[in-house]
Amino acid sequence: MSENIAIQFANEAFYEAFANADLAAMVEVWAPEGPLFCCHPGWPPLTSRDEVMASWGRILAAGGAMPIRCLSPEIGVFGGVGLVTCYESLGKHRFAVTNLFAKIGPRWRMIHHHAGPIAALPGGIEADEPAGSGPRSRH
Amino acid sequence: MSENIAIQFANEAFYEAFANADLAAMVEVWAPEGPLFCCHPGWPPLTSRDEVMASWGRILAAGGAMPIRCLSPEIGVFGGVGLVTCYESLGKHRFAVTNLFAKIGPRWRMIHHHAGPIAALPGGIEADEPAGSGPRSRH
Repeated sequence: MSENIAIQFANEAFYEAFANADLAAMVEVWAPEGPLFCCHPGWPPLTSRDEVMASWGRILAAGGAMPIRCLSPEIGVFGGVGLVTCYESLGKHRFAVTNLFAKIGPRWRMIHHHAGPIAALPGGIEADEPAGSGPRSRH
Repeated sequence: MSENIAIQFANEAFYEAFANADLAAMVEVWAPEGPLFCCHPGWPPLTSRDEVMASWGRILAAGGAMPIRCLSPEIGVFGGVGLVTCYESLGKHRFAVTNLFAKIGPRWRMIHHHAGPIAALPGGIEADEPAGSGPRSRH
């Protein structure tokens, strides 16, 4: 399995955990230790695993299954870091997203999630794009 | 010079070019080729060097010297990738920021800038923090 595909799977696991409001899966998605960074739209960033996990606990408990969609992921690999840029659609909201994954043992684990609001998606990207539409490789 | 310090300098060069509305310096900050990512607050991300440089041309021409401040930078190094997370203060606006730099030859060059609006800075971070206050290392 190429590293690009492995990073794609890790990114998809993040959005599946989010969409299914599956906190146990979300706990597995993130790196088990070390400094993390998680910036939910409008929130100040959170930088400890405890804070990050507590935030997901609140978000996933509050919303139940979430209509979150990952759109147009683009994947880059830089040694032990995987970079995914994508858009998120959540109801009427649209976000530009930077996700970073670190290779820890055999698995890519999330170390950084930054979702910032944008006014609209670029032309050519549809909010109802099929979830399984393949990512483009940046490298 | 440690890589952390070199990445700190690259990040400071970015904010100096921004604050001084120095497009020639901004052109030097960014990687000369390859896929880039630049998301100005509220804009859809730009992903080609031509688009990114054109956006800076418009932003820096429109505003003259900009009251941009980089606050609380935290620096991580993952092989050939440098990660800087920080806040920006621009007038009354506050942004959470992800900056990525790639080591290209001897220099760290920006490959990714994502500034997303946030409602407020976290407690303990002041918008008038001295620009030269040192970054903390994440690793």
